[in-house]
Amino acid sequence: MAAEVYASRRQRLRERCGAGGNATALVSRPANVRYLAGAAPRGAVLLLGPGEDVLVCAVPPDERPHEGRPDEALTVRTLPHAGGDPAVAAADILLDQGGAESLAVEEHHLTVARHRALRSVAPRLRLADLGAAVEQLRVIKDEEEISCLRTGAEIADQALGELLESILVGRTERHLALELERRLVDHGADGPAFPTSVGTGPHSGRRGHRPTDRRVEEGDFLTVCLGATYRGYRCEIGRTFVIGTSPAEWQIELYDLVFAAQRAGRESLVPGAACRDVDHAVRQVIDSAGYADGLPDLTGHGVGLEIDEDPQLAPAAMGKLDACVPVTVEPGVHLPGRGGVRIDDTLVVRPEADGGPELLTITTKELLAL
Amino acid sequence: MAAEVYASRRQRLRERCGAGGNATALVSRPANVRYLAGAAPRGAVLLLGPGEDVLVCAVPPDERPHEGRPDEALTVRTLPHAGGDPAVAAADILLDQGGAESLAVEEHHLTVARHRALRSVAPRLRLADLGAAVEQLRVIKDEEEISCLRTGAEIADQALGELLESILVGRTERHLALELERRLVDHGADGPAFPTSVGTGPHSGRRGHRPTDRRVEEGDFLTVCLGATYRGYRCEIGRTFVIGTSPAEWQIELYDLVFAAQRAGRESLVPGAACRDVDHAVRQVIDSAGYADGLPDLTGHGVGLEIDEDPQLAPAAMGKLDACVPVTVEPGVHLPGRGGVRIDDTLVVRPEADGGPELLTITTKELLAL
Repeated sequence: MAAEVYASRRQRLRERCGAGGNATALVSRPANVRYLAGAAPRGAVLLLGPGEDVLVCAVPPDERPHEGRPDEALTVRTLPHAGGDPAVAAADILLDQGGAESLAVEEHHLTVARHRALRSVAPRLRLADLGAAVEQLRVIKDEEEISCLRTGAEIADQALGELLESILVGRTERHLALELERRLVDHGADGPAFPTSVGTGPHSGRRGHRPTDRRVEEGDFLTVCLGATYRGYRCEIGRTFVIGTSPAEWQIELYDLVFAAQRAGRESLVPGAACRDVDHAVRQVIDSAGYADGLPDLTGHGVGLEIDEDPQLAPAAMGKLDACVPVTVEPGVHLPGRGGVRIDDTLVVRPEADGGPELLTITTKELLAL
Repeated sequence: MAAEVYASRRQRLRERCGAGGNATALVSRPANVRYLAGAAPRGAVLLLGPGEDVLVCAVPPDERPHEGRPDEALTVRTLPHAGGDPAVAAADILLDQGGAESLAVEEHHLTVARHRALRSVAPRLRLADLGAAVEQLRVIKDEEEISCLRTGAEIADQALGELLESILVGRTERHLALELERRLVDHGADGPAFPTSVGTGPHSGRRGHRPTDRRVEEGDFLTVCLGATYRGYRCEIGRTFVIGTSPAEWQIELYDLVFAAQRAGRESLVPGAACRDVDHAVRQVIDSAGYADGLPDLTGHGVGLEIDEDPQLAPAAMGKLDACVPVTVEPGVHLPGRGGVRIDDTLVVRPEADGGPELLTITTKELLAL
């Protein structure tokens, strides 16, 4: 991304910190560091100082392009010896710069022990809480970020499409998941966006099911959920198929229900919609068919540099959707002992004038019998 | 593992806590939870209460056998709704049990925000620091743990052996790494113990090199470092090969040097040896040949439920080796622009009467030309 992107993100954070009475901030959560600095080598922290901004690294920045490159406007310092804490080194740098009275840190990421180490190296510095300020900046994406998500979704669609062309009966969930992850990388992904979920038979339809050695059998539902990371950005797609020549009646009914619920969610993705209303749109379709117990706590969530970001689409969620916020819509129903259906897309909220929500994951949602 | 194993580990921790003046402890670091409870579902914490011990989970325990099963002597509680903090729920449970005045927590793992949440739910409870008490218990392994490491090492040897039988020239580091990881799982690993490192040509010999799209060429050094996780236990093996019919003179010399250094390290693994002396034995071979700059900060480390555990084999390391401590010995020399050599084994420290150090990773260390 262009250098000014990172500088302007840091500027926005600085303004927020300033409004909260803190002139300086220490960002340690890896996705937040990458968002503001262009790269987040393992353990690195970003210091927004009164003077310059410094990326303090425990190891030199990774050379692989998909790990990103540190913004050239930043000073990069790598600790000379392993084992040091970049956060403590950053506090030293801040003291050298002089003039800082307080430092906002990410209390939801920093451990108690590191916080104490900061206090002991800089006892006169008031440590404040940056809270989720960077996470909030990350919610609305720019077009370059969305373009990374779009490419990732294309890769996931490709990997899934190729799997569907192969023989599935007799193969284990674990092998199918591994093959999908290999295909993601073959098509240019940095790696999987999260552990690929493959559930068949009684495991189908479960959110986050971790693959087992169960083999695909005739008559099974098969649920696959995968995603690609591309230049750090993570997308998600989930589909459910039926194995064999023709689905059973209960399978068609359950599939149609989840499909209708997912469509209701997708159609309610408009700028200004309350997150809980999107969740409600999905949930009421499933509730009205009497399957409320099978629904998970949330029916969708934001995606970006992490796979599970704000906003949450859940009954108690606060806040509204904005344009250019990518979210998943992913209802599912699982019937214990029988299996179930999940359908999961990544979409970007867009105004109706721009054509409404942009679907990134375009694999068909017809019920395929494989 | 047998149920009494976990109960006796918890008993030892309880004794340690008691000696430190704390009757109760909250363990949150995942590997520590698994060590004491038999399983560590995502986000789970273990409460060692004055009454019963409780595993508090955010999600139900995973059904896959390699994730372990919670010790049946434990009470398992799963939070009814996602988003709750098991640590806070554990504090509530402790208050219900009554009688506790202090609670030792893992300050090196718990975030400032979670620590504050604990304080606010239990303001009268004195929060102390458990420190690395569980990590220290984990250093010396029992034979069942060593047996898991041995199986993991066999799997890694198999995966590596198969790779060496295939054509390597023209393939990228990334593809070789993916293939190795697939083979690990094929042979029964839970998964890779750490991201597989494959470095060729100028990338060879670098510790923790992350695979790129560089292809293997004639005349290259090829360094491969991989490991299997088996029932949670992680081992490590690293080898360097030469591609083509015959190695160059400098390659043979460099290989012999690193081999000699690694052997010196292996041979100094005896119960009672100072960790820094093992490091020194490795380091002086390489120093004496004038390559000191190429050496990393450490030349080995413990392995177990995590890939990088105590003890560290490094110049400033404190402490001595005990019998039944598994460690890596992994010197390497990297010449910028040319490449280098790393040789890495996992061994278990054993008394001489038992035959000396037990080599778990048995792939040949002759310089193979592939």
